[in-house]
Amino acid sequence: MKRTKIYEGKILGLSVYDGKLEGRKVRREVIEHRGAAAMLAFDEDEKVILVKQNRFPHGDVLEIPAGTLEKREEPIKCAFRELEEETGYTAKKMTLLITYYPSIGYNAEIIHCFLASGLKKTSNLKLDEDEILSVVKMDLKKVISMIKTGKIQDSKTICAVLTYAAKKKLY
Amino acid sequence: MKRTKIYEGKILGLSVYDGKLEGRKVRREVIEHRGAAAMLAFDEDEKVILVKQNRFPHGDVLEIPAGTLEKREEPIKCAFRELEEETGYTAKKMTLLITYYPSIGYNAEIIHCFLASGLKKTSNLKLDEDEILSVVKMDLKKVISMIKTGKIQDSKTICAVLTYAAKKKLY
Repeated sequence: MKRTKIYEGKILGLSVYDGKLEGRKVRREVIEHRGAAAMLAFDEDEKVILVKQNRFPHGDVLEIPAGTLEKREEPIKCAFRELEEETGYTAKKMTLLITYYPSIGYNAEIIHCFLASGLKKTSNLKLDEDEILSVVKMDLKKVISMIKTGKIQDSKTICAVLTYAAKKKLY
Repeated sequence: MKRTKIYEGKILGLSVYDGKLEGRKVRREVIEHRGAAAMLAFDEDEKVILVKQNRFPHGDVLEIPAGTLEKREEPIKCAFRELEEETGYTAKKMTLLITYYPSIGYNAEIIHCFLASGLKKTSNLKLDEDEILSVVKMDLKKVISMIKTGKIQDSKTICAVLTYAAKKKLY
């Protein structure tokens, strides 16, 4: 496939590919992204640690903590780093829960969801200068019910929480 | 926010927004997308109808049938249309299962997942000229186990199947 680079930005790039797939002439628009890590984390009281942030153009969104991988950063390292930066908690252990593609048809981004365990509040949030968020704690049951009723609409939160519930055979 | 249009393509666009959110100077790269419909459909034998297609750059991917909304197309109309085009089945009814954002941080795409019922095989596939796919039928249990073991990594398949399972209190 012949690649034409359209854009290289802060968190994503865009290229257009022209060529043949299985003998057919195709054009593919592909978002380039380093990938991300997302963390399902429970605090000392078994509450899920969520973050609420203003996600332009969506407005306020409730989601599990997550962040984009730095260049050549291991997903698990990113998970430990982002959990502390966004929530002030450090985890003893990160266990891979699920790895998925948010928009497999046109986006190279892959999201690694981890289960964070052994949490301890150690510091205050260390946010990027254009990051605006607050921490919200909630029972897992409430999170699952907010997913089922459409009040939580973020893919990484849905995929991590429902995969965790499926593996634990909850509800 | 000041919008700078970078690209307008076949399935997506890209704009960069500069401005202030809650008093902070921010830049946001936003993928523009019309949105999509995805369908969890069971055939006459209660098998889940999946499609297998070559998703550049990911290779062969197993996923539930789905498609991008046409201009001003209702999500439910898109669901009926795409199910028939991609699988040759018509559905009597489409019930909204979940609506979610695949990459809420930078992508405007919203995916509407429907439960398709009253299926009947009526025609052959009507694929877009650059669409290359085949139909695969599978027990729901097998699909859930492929999600849990990381063999299915497509967000709409994970979100639709696990939300359906959670609502039905399966496993």
